[in-house]
Amino acid sequence: MSSVVQGFNPRTGEPFGDGVPKTSDSEVDRIASAAAAAFGPWSSLPATERADVLDSLADALDASSELLITTADTETALGVPRLTVELKRTTNQIRLFGEVLREGSYVEATLDTANPDIIPPRPVLRRVLRPLGPVAVFSASNFPFAFSVAGGDTASALASGCPVVVKAHSAHPRTSVETARVVASVLPEGVFGIVYGTESGRALVQHPAIKAAGFTGSTGGGRALFDLAQGRPDPIPFYGELGSVNPTVILPGAATPDIAAGFAQSLTMGVGQFCTNPGLVFAPASIVSALGEAVAASGGGAMLNERMCDSYRASTDALAASDLVTVVSTGTKPDEAWAVEPRLFTVPLETFRDNLEKLTEEHFGPAGIVVTYSDPADLVDVLRRLPGTLTGTVHAAPSDHEAAGVIAEALRHIAGRLIFNAWPTGVAVAWGQHHGGPWPATTNPLHTSVGATSIRRWIAPVTYQSWPDELLPPELQDANPLNIPRRIDGVLGTH
Amino acid sequence: MSSVVQGFNPRTGEPFGDGVPKTSDSEVDRIASAAAAAFGPWSSLPATERADVLDSLADALDASSELLITTADTETALGVPRLTVELKRTTNQIRLFGEVLREGSYVEATLDTANPDIIPPRPVLRRVLRPLGPVAVFSASNFPFAFSVAGGDTASALASGCPVVVKAHSAHPRTSVETARVVASVLPEGVFGIVYGTESGRALVQHPAIKAAGFTGSTGGGRALFDLAQGRPDPIPFYGELGSVNPTVILPGAATPDIAAGFAQSLTMGVGQFCTNPGLVFAPASIVSALGEAVAASGGGAMLNERMCDSYRASTDALAASDLVTVVSTGTKPDEAWAVEPRLFTVPLETFRDNLEKLTEEHFGPAGIVVTYSDPADLVDVLRRLPGTLTGTVHAAPSDHEAAGVIAEALRHIAGRLIFNAWPTGVAVAWGQHHGGPWPATTNPLHTSVGATSIRRWIAPVTYQSWPDELLPPELQDANPLNIPRRIDGVLGTH
Repeated sequence: MSSVVQGFNPRTGEPFGDGVPKTSDSEVDRIASAAAAAFGPWSSLPATERADVLDSLADALDASSELLITTADTETALGVPRLTVELKRTTNQIRLFGEVLREGSYVEATLDTANPDIIPPRPVLRRVLRPLGPVAVFSASNFPFAFSVAGGDTASALASGCPVVVKAHSAHPRTSVETARVVASVLPEGVFGIVYGTESGRALVQHPAIKAAGFTGSTGGGRALFDLAQGRPDPIPFYGELGSVNPTVILPGAATPDIAAGFAQSLTMGVGQFCTNPGLVFAPASIVSALGEAVAASGGGAMLNERMCDSYRASTDALAASDLVTVVSTGTKPDEAWAVEPRLFTVPLETFRDNLEKLTEEHFGPAGIVVTYSDPADLVDVLRRLPGTLTGTVHAAPSDHEAAGVIAEALRHIAGRLIFNAWPTGVAVAWGQHHGGPWPATTNPLHTSVGATSIRRWIAPVTYQSWPDELLPPELQDANPLNIPRRIDGVLGTH
Repeated sequence: MSSVVQGFNPRTGEPFGDGVPKTSDSEVDRIASAAAAAFGPWSSLPATERADVLDSLADALDASSELLITTADTETALGVPRLTVELKRTTNQIRLFGEVLREGSYVEATLDTANPDIIPPRPVLRRVLRPLGPVAVFSASNFPFAFSVAGGDTASALASGCPVVVKAHSAHPRTSVETARVVASVLPEGVFGIVYGTESGRALVQHPAIKAAGFTGSTGGGRALFDLAQGRPDPIPFYGELGSVNPTVILPGAATPDIAAGFAQSLTMGVGQFCTNPGLVFAPASIVSALGEAVAASGGGAMLNERMCDSYRASTDALAASDLVTVVSTGTKPDEAWAVEPRLFTVPLETFRDNLEKLTEEHFGPAGIVVTYSDPADLVDVLRRLPGTLTGTVHAAPSDHEAAGVIAEALRHIAGRLIFNAWPTGVAVAWGQHHGGPWPATTNPLHTSVGATSIRRWIAPVTYQSWPDELLPPELQDANPLNIPRRIDGVLGTH
């Protein structure tokens, strides 16, 4: 076993930069304990002051963009244009949480007046959400910024008042080191820490000081950490975003050749290494050849690491060799060490239905299966049987609206986000975003890892009963000194 | 193994009424499948129509109050006055959820307009909370109405649009049968089911049709079911309310003899069989004799079942025999089969601190430990080390206010509800209530089993992206036809 986490250049397969020492158990303990010590002061800062710190963090990351993007491009081969957008998305996300803190309704301040005449009698009750404590964040491979060291889990947890200890992903150790350097330079001592190596992650999620965890990655890796978190003497909330098949239904009226280019672009974006990659398409047979031509004209690229590359090749080769599906087309690939090419398969609905488990295995990368159908009504039962998924997409012409309603009703039981006449890749950072879904899309269908409400994962209610006004948190005091939206005797407002 | 669940009269120890057949695995499967079939229609009912059904349910239970209360009194020995209040509390709770549905903000409707100029670009996003699917509810022994067949878990899940399958508690099978008869007479076919026997509960929580579970009971029983729920191929949310030590701090200015009567009443209410029983009191030594006199003057009663009675006697005998604590006083008990007497112990803070784990074991029943201290500042570290608890209470005079603030800051990390100059028993049903807390008070610190927000446990977000207005749920349509509070571009209001 190596004592360092070594980064590589996926275009050449060569090591990149110095390896980063794996974090020992005693170092994990020291970092988690420092986070616990920092929890009191950080969580006691007024929310608007935490918002100012988040703005500074966003500015500092933007100021280091050149180094961060260059490093990440070498380690991930995702390309400078994509990484430039991803870093901007990451800093905008941090700033959104500043907005959330300043608006203030995220604490759900709720005030009830007394009513001695009901059963049971009601004393004065005041409820507010408070941060849980130090949070462990497990970085993803495929978003070296947006779902990594300074990504959405980290930003939302810091915003809530929780210190964060990140477990860096082994696919981009140098990017993690550089990002962590920026984060640590802005945040107070102990509020942010980082650990390296698989074993450090296992120690972290079981550490008594850690009160919740966030994860983005594979179903296998996520399940293993979920099991450790739930197996603790004191189980903790574990928010994992795992695998997702992202079904897309192309209804008959929308099944025209001009849809094909958008599909191929979404399927192959970032070498298909998106959790919202539309790898499973239900379409009339008439459109298969157009989809195939678009994929044939598309290019692949180097995958994030050698294991993913090998795994994609093995699993798509096995699929191609099986007698269940037909190969439609194959795209091109650059001459790079860990490069793969897009692949498209097709299967009739009846065969898919009879082999649903096998044919819904995720092939992480730019591979898609087109399931051909004749009547949209036949899709309802199959869609309801799909595993939980982050997204479900419908392409429809005006003539398809009735069918679209039926398909949406089936999809909403299995998917966290329903998309109309667009493609699922590209996850906006907004108040109304939901990036989640039933198992195995996530480990907890109530929560999202993107958007304003992702902060809800790290805060829990406390109710103050008959408490003197001057001893209450400001969010709950009579005068509403923070001027935040509150609910009083059941009525929402700014009072 | 008996094939029936047999009820008993705790006052006589004799069997009561016919045993209720244990539910077989195939019956559990049939009932859970019926709940799954009922999910579509029940969740599609407009919320205001579900509210009307809940009102009818409350009325029907009130109309059957005589039979329900008489049956429950025989099976639980909790007494007609208490059970009359508890049933009224239960029906008022059901009606509160009608209010919650009519007010409408519980779905957190959130609308974002498009903004193509930000990174990443934002399409039109509309987020709403939708019910998860059939819910398993595990009844408690100590509240045959409020936390049982038609209790808060059932009411909140039905309100959310989820069908419910209850696992009846073995301490009151006949009460469960009679309550279930009323519930089933009001609700549509399949929306409500009930199963009997320990094995049926294990089958239920692992059934593929069940999408979430609620539980109120012991730490051991809750942990076993939690582990089954998390060990499923598809883990489901499991909301358990388990054990709670409910620390009370009597600050020096409040340490006067007139506090003692309130303490003894709260400690012995319902024979101490309350999850918010104040069994752990931190007080100046000067007040111990007054507390002891009040407990000596108090009466015990018959416990809910023989096992609890035996367990209380054994655990308090062992405590009395240990050299860690001193017996302060013992109350009286009626001459009934499973009756126990209140017991009060005392221990100095230093001894308590050194034996914290042993001395915070829950003695379910009317037993209390007074931990004597000299300086309130010495309490902070000890309070922070206590296990998670539903409540934390402070008794303070005006001269204690500074100390009260320090104590509250320590308590809010371990307790879900903080109470000032009152006792923790009695949990109001309100918008601002929180009946939860860190492990082992509950399995998930983010949620409550009492109050308006308990509905949040059974609903999860779905976001509609670029979706045609006429195909959206009414909560999200442009015209806001339900006239509910919504958030638009980050701003809460009724628009």
